[in-house]
Amino acid sequence: MEVDEVVSLPRLSQVAVCGGTHGNELSGVYLIRELLKAKEKVMEKEVEESVSVLMVLSNPRAMQQCRRYIDTDLNRCFTHATLNGPMSDMAPYEIIRSRELNAMLGPKGSPEAVDLVCDLHNTTANMGLCLITYSDCDWICLHIFRHLQKLMSDIPLRYIHFDISNKESYSLDSVGKHGFAIEIGPQPHGVVRSNIYTLMKAGVQHMLDWVRSFNSGCIFEGGFVDVFTMVKHVDYPRDNETQNITAAIHPQLQDRDFCLLCPEDPLFQTFSGDTLRYKGTEPLYPFFINECAYYEKGIALSLARKRRVMVPAVRVQTEEEQQANKQKFTSEEDD
Amino acid sequence: MEVDEVVSLPRLSQVAVCGGTHGNELSGVYLIRELLKAKEKVMEKEVEESVSVLMVLSNPRAMQQCRRYIDTDLNRCFTHATLNGPMSDMAPYEIIRSRELNAMLGPKGSPEAVDLVCDLHNTTANMGLCLITYSDCDWICLHIFRHLQKLMSDIPLRYIHFDISNKESYSLDSVGKHGFAIEIGPQPHGVVRSNIYTLMKAGVQHMLDWVRSFNSGCIFEGGFVDVFTMVKHVDYPRDNETQNITAAIHPQLQDRDFCLLCPEDPLFQTFSGDTLRYKGTEPLYPFFINECAYYEKGIALSLARKRRVMVPAVRVQTEEEQQANKQKFTSEEDD
Repeated sequence: MEVDEVVSLPRLSQVAVCGGTHGNELSGVYLIRELLKAKEKVMEKEVEESVSVLMVLSNPRAMQQCRRYIDTDLNRCFTHATLNGPMSDMAPYEIIRSRELNAMLGPKGSPEAVDLVCDLHNTTANMGLCLITYSDCDWICLHIFRHLQKLMSDIPLRYIHFDISNKESYSLDSVGKHGFAIEIGPQPHGVVRSNIYTLMKAGVQHMLDWVRSFNSGCIFEGGFVDVFTMVKHVDYPRDNETQNITAAIHPQLQDRDFCLLCPEDPLFQTFSGDTLRYKGTEPLYPFFINECAYYEKGIALSLARKRRVMVPAVRVQTEEEQQANKQKFTSEEDD
Repeated sequence: MEVDEVVSLPRLSQVAVCGGTHGNELSGVYLIRELLKAKEKVMEKEVEESVSVLMVLSNPRAMQQCRRYIDTDLNRCFTHATLNGPMSDMAPYEIIRSRELNAMLGPKGSPEAVDLVCDLHNTTANMGLCLITYSDCDWICLHIFRHLQKLMSDIPLRYIHFDISNKESYSLDSVGKHGFAIEIGPQPHGVVRSNIYTLMKAGVQHMLDWVRSFNSGCIFEGGFVDVFTMVKHVDYPRDNETQNITAAIHPQLQDRDFCLLCPEDPLFQTFSGDTLRYKGTEPLYPFFINECAYYEKGIALSLARKRRVMVPAVRVQTEEEQQANKQKFTSEEDD
């Protein structure tokens, strides 16, 4: 592609904003409730919208108990295998709920799926605001990121990429044609902090504003984005017998998400006071440092490689382009 | 009492240090595990100790699930009424466990109770290190506080007093002849942060050092302590219908525990962005601001009055004084 080429992409008619996928990550829970109230008022006024926005509270039972999940982590249930596997009456609550959400927002991978899913999360890690995606070439996600970065320049924003196929992708946002999680921290789970809530609210509003501008025909200039691609997870040191952890994140690493971790840098401090060092050979960027919910998953932190990605200019497809695409799709189906 | 009078107090022969009373407050859980390991080593060496230290993991089932409690908050189960009420096979786990702990460390209010209970807690509030007690004239607790304050001068230390009778006092530390909670934050529940762990470890070590010095006959000079006496709790604004909270702690109040809150200061920020102000008439000191576990208890923050308390010099009773006291006690019993 040429640098000054403008890529035309299908209209984003349906957007879903989801909160409470983890029932104790409260910014999203309270934001969706607030947006639902605000939407009622807008609907009373019968405002014409260029985009239909669906607000979803994903895991109401976990929200009610202020827990991450009831039976199993809902945000790991959206693989093709889990969504399409056999189903019994004894299935865990989140397995049942993932199918309801897939029916509502998907089906995943189908032309009926909503155009964009934005799923709201919190972390106890000092990560600022992150977009987490499965793609380093989804121009919609990357442009939304650039838009947020431009308008929220007083806080750190990062774009995280999990290099996993659509089939294997497991999170709720993978159900949409495009999708990402907005992850904001630090905030303890079960707590709502005004500053974090306000950031999330601004992020969602800027995202929806971008979608409306895109649908209305604006051209968005291209440019570069730093993409953090996840390389590996690191577990805590553990006692062989009990599997209890024997060390915490080192005080010199704690809260330093996205600061380069070099070989021999302090990694953990054992409960008896010893320092354990990073034994990798490649400097990498740590993130999700000391995330509460990952103790049980065996993740003390994740490590990423940083890469600069060139994002092309984009605009929405014209009606003619859309018609042509539809015909192309139909004739392919006929083949 | 004269200012230069030295108060003599009974020896502290038995001390209990407890962690995991709330199963997701991890500093205490990992510290007690570590101290148990260290104790094994000391016992191998057969070191003669002037004090017998009992390390207790209070709520092992909640610890295993990394939850505050299984059925009900263990640290509200130690009132005389709950400890001595009728008991069924269907009793909540924590009711059963509170009686086991009372048998082990008490019985509460009896001469058999351990001399001192130190119960380890974490909070999501920015409270630094606090001692929480039921007395503003327990010279042992106040002297231990002064000792910690002297040796840990780089962090904020406060002495909190809940003005509740021994009969009504509900927490595990009320089972000992003397008792207090060490509360350290901010730390998300379910997370262990090295800096908070290290503070707690130092606090417990200094406390035990003080007890040993006291038992060995040292005289501890008197002086003043600022005591924060709890006046009242303040709940979040809530929706009449759903009882959901409609506001978070105001960003100007968040993390400002123990900074004087004056009438008309910002208190909450609603989820639609409005500021709600403190309508009290008396300036008071806020603490437990935005503590995770108190959402369900209807407490957004607590408010305290500050008062300066004169603490006399203390020393341990001589053997003669102890004998005289015992005889006095026995002759009172004979009456």
